Amino acid sequence: MQNIYFTPGPSALYFTVEHHIKHAIKHGITSISHRSKEFEKIFKKAESNLSELLNLPDNFQLVFTSSASEIWEKITDGLIKNKSLHFVNGAFSQKFASVVKNLGKQADIIASAWGDLPDYSLEKSGPYDVLAITHNETSTGVKTPLSAIKSVRQGYPEAIVAIDAVSSLPIINFDYSQIDTVYASVQKGFGLPAGLGVWLLNDKAIEKATLMREKQQLRNSYHNILTLVEQAKRYQTPSTPNILGIYLLSQVAQDMITRGIQHIRNDSVYKAAILYNMLEKHDILKPFVGDKKLRSETIIVIDSGDRTEDLINFVAKRKMIIGEGYGPLKDKQVRIANFPTHSKEQFEMLVDLIEKFE
Amino acid sequence: MQNIYFTPGPSALYFTVEHHIKHAIKHGITSISHRSKEFEKIFKKAESNLSELLNLPDNFQLVFTSSASEIWEKITDGLIKNKSLHFVNGAFSQKFASVVKNLGKQADIIASAWGDLPDYSLEKSGPYDVLAITHNETSTGVKTPLSAIKSVRQGYPEAIVAIDAVSSLPIINFDYSQIDTVYASVQKGFGLPAGLGVWLLNDKAIEKATLMREKQQLRNSYHNILTLVEQAKRYQTPSTPNILGIYLLSQVAQDMITRGIQHIRNDSVYKAAILYNMLEKHDILKPFVGDKKLRSETIIVIDSGDRTEDLINFVAKRKMIIGEGYGPLKDKQVRIANFPTHSKEQFEMLVDLIEKFE
Repeated sequence: MQNIYFTPGPSALYFTVEHHIKHAIKHGITSISHRSKEFEKIFKKAESNLSELLNLPDNFQLVFTSSASEIWEKITDGLIKNKSLHFVNGAFSQKFASVVKNLGKQADIIASAWGDLPDYSLEKSGPYDVLAITHNETSTGVKTPLSAIKSVRQGYPEAIVAIDAVSSLPIINFDYSQIDTVYASVQKGFGLPAGLGVWLLNDKAIEKATLMREKQQLRNSYHNILTLVEQAKRYQTPSTPNILGIYLLSQVAQDMITRGIQHIRNDSVYKAAILYNMLEKHDILKPFVGDKKLRSETIIVIDSGDRTEDLINFVAKRKMIIGEGYGPLKDKQVRIANFPTHSKEQFEMLVDLIEKFE
Repeated sequence: MQNIYFTPGPSALYFTVEHHIKHAIKHGITSISHRSKEFEKIFKKAESNLSELLNLPDNFQLVFTSSASEIWEKITDGLIKNKSLHFVNGAFSQKFASVVKNLGKQADIIASAWGDLPDYSLEKSGPYDVLAITHNETSTGVKTPLSAIKSVRQGYPEAIVAIDAVSSLPIINFDYSQIDTVYASVQKGFGLPAGLGVWLLNDKAIEKATLMREKQQLRNSYHNILTLVEQAKRYQTPSTPNILGIYLLSQVAQDMITRGIQHIRNDSVYKAAILYNMLEKHDILKPFVGDKKLRSETIIVIDSGDRTEDLINFVAKRKMIIGEGYGPLKDKQVRIANFPTHSKEQFEMLVDLIEKFE
């Protein structure tokens, strides 16, 4: 029996990936030129499948990077003229703000304690180029209610709303009319090998970048937001991309469409519920996030205190691998991913096992 | 029978890659955390294998990016304070110079016609932070004699000598005492799926970047030259990397060590020789690069004029895929890769076939 990875990323491969990799090798997909018609077909199919899976409006453009953290840099260089506003409640939301500052722009921060939600009603004196919202803080397992995104957008109608959906897609059904750009990594919810960032931008975001370029405010790097967009409109990339990753994304998105995204999302709610319910009654363990409305479905963080290592080893004996806490909470918490590849049966096994931990 | 890819990149997978991918999936290597000890072992093994394969001196550090063209940006931001000097004889050497200019630094150029070698004896008024030499111009099939690298280095002893070895490694046995930094992509000579850049830096290059950071001349991006180096010294990366790619590189480097790098290099010379010799006598086709000393072993470019499409289709009927010319020469030339994965037998078949083209 092989290990089952419930780690928060990289996580378990989507269960069809091995098959698709074999197919890709057999049919030379790893050897085709990224300037060929065959590659353009793969890119186009990835775009149409992702668009269908996420029910994207027509005004969104898909581009590829090598990671989500690369996108932090591209947003800073291409969408932030002066200043961004960051809602910070964990390591990843903080890192984006640091990237902006390190690149010489201003980053205002509205922060909360880890495990909590920043005050989305707080008013700051803008104007802001970008509002940076981490939908799902992978370090803490806090999710941002979609209503908060809507309300903060109303406060700064000019700003580009940028959503870090690294561990949210494709589970969360975003209202894309409230979002201008959203990005994710493929090694989490999509269940692919790491090494590909997925970035969606609407026309408002592209227009903003275009205006910045006209005014020479956009950093004219080889892989900037607009070179990526302009190449992507022709189903191309500025340099040789992770072709295998793009192919696998296309195939897995198709598989998820076939399975039914609503079905996958319903399963996700069920799997999260049985884990949180068990934790509520557990003698030793408890959910880190107190407020039920803020509990992430996809990254479930458990306060395990000085029993953390014991817990990880306890489930590892049954070939189930769960993640450590993040950063300062590394030794005090575990993090469990609930992604589309994790079946209800696997989750039930895991929940039953953790229930017995004493 | 499957296609055999002689395209200049992405090219055919190294013949052991499929096996290694299966092993990686079976053993959960795509699912391990990039912050785990297991990942550090993989990185360390990749470094020691590559170091042995290339016979690297101890003062070189390996870091990973997502592509070689990303490295152009990182060199510009982290090693070029004011000005670089570029030897330009094709599309890729030109692109690097453009990247430098677009990022606001000065880039002097010594250029030649495509198919020729820039004048390496020409003296320009520096000082230069970086000398950019494209060892093997993938767009034209011109290789730079190693003696030229040595002589130009003597002219500018302060400068960092940066070698684009995208389609040179691991075939070319560089004298690393004459080089400060060298970079490649894995989808060419290493025969891996695209999506990983390999970057080697010596202590002189790292010291230069460190000095630039102290003087606040280094662009403080999330993935800059020094964050990459500092993480790599602990066998880590700033963000989730292409873990599968790093694993495959490690394994393929090991396979090449086992096979014997000198053996692989001897085969490479043989394969190039039989193709060039046949072309010398061909009625219709001829080698693009006239000067034999400048003819690349790894990228062999053929003047095929208005018969280009015919030639590509002629060999494709036998399941052999060769590349188009690059850029303006797309319809007038073909490019053939001669990489370690291409066996002598495959090359003999290809040469016999092209010989019959009329």
